[in-house]
Amino acid sequence: MITASWSKSPIRDISPTECWELLTGESVGRVAFVDDAGPAVVPVNFTVEEQTVLIATSPYSNLAQHVLRGPVAFEVDGVDEFTESGWSVLARGHATQVPVSELNPTAERPEPWAEGTRTFYLRITPSEVTGRRLLPS
Amino acid sequence: MITASWSKSPIRDISPTECWELLTGESVGRVAFVDDAGPAVVPVNFTVEEQTVLIATSPYSNLAQHVLRGPVAFEVDGVDEFTESGWSVLARGHATQVPVSELNPTAERPEPWAEGTRTFYLRITPSEVTGRRLLPS
Repeated sequence: MITASWSKSPIRDISPTECWELLTGESVGRVAFVDDAGPAVVPVNFTVEEQTVLIATSPYSNLAQHVLRGPVAFEVDGVDEFTESGWSVLARGHATQVPVSELNPTAERPEPWAEGTRTFYLRITPSEVTGRRLLPS
Repeated sequence: MITASWSKSPIRDISPTECWELLTGESVGRVAFVDDAGPAVVPVNFTVEEQTVLIATSPYSNLAQHVLRGPVAFEVDGVDEFTESGWSVLARGHATQVPVSELNPTAERPEPWAEGTRTFYLRITPSEVTGRRLLPS
């Protein structure tokens, strides 16, 4: 358990350029999409390619079934429990399916850690990327 | 960077009981809600109280403005990049606002790390709690 801190952490916005640097430095993010029960969040491995986020999932997943139907969000964050600080980046936009034949042959592909056939490639093209940093107080 | 692993991590479902144990062990989670632009994800500090999730935010936040309008999701996860394994828990349901006077006086309250007046208490009551574990391969 973390005890209450004396002073609170100041909040600062993160520039779009630094948001992309933070996204590029991570290997696990979270996709939020909406299915019949409302918003859902799924952790995924991903790569960044020209200011888009590339993920691979199973064509039978709940994610694959619903992610193309409306807007999505992609979140990464980093937390330091000791100093009660951290950062988060949220990319909001739409996802499109990418046929394997249209994947950039020279670019790194997302390598899901999870077992299973993950041949359903998705590209999230954000229309907005924002980030916030909680500085150590 | 993580290099591609030889074998993939097997996936196992996490029982609801263990999902609550994992939730209780964390201090930072992520709320997903839907605003006019689609799903959004915001990291928050939280406490667990009788199989509900309690968070505190600013009454002026985008979260506070939209979280009561429809279903929400709450996600926690843990990732081990070295073994390419991890777990995640997703609680889906609805949020209600809790007047300060109705907070349990003897229970721990969420202590946001972030600065600002966070007097808008929300209780997320999940109708479904699921979790998955990627075992080290």
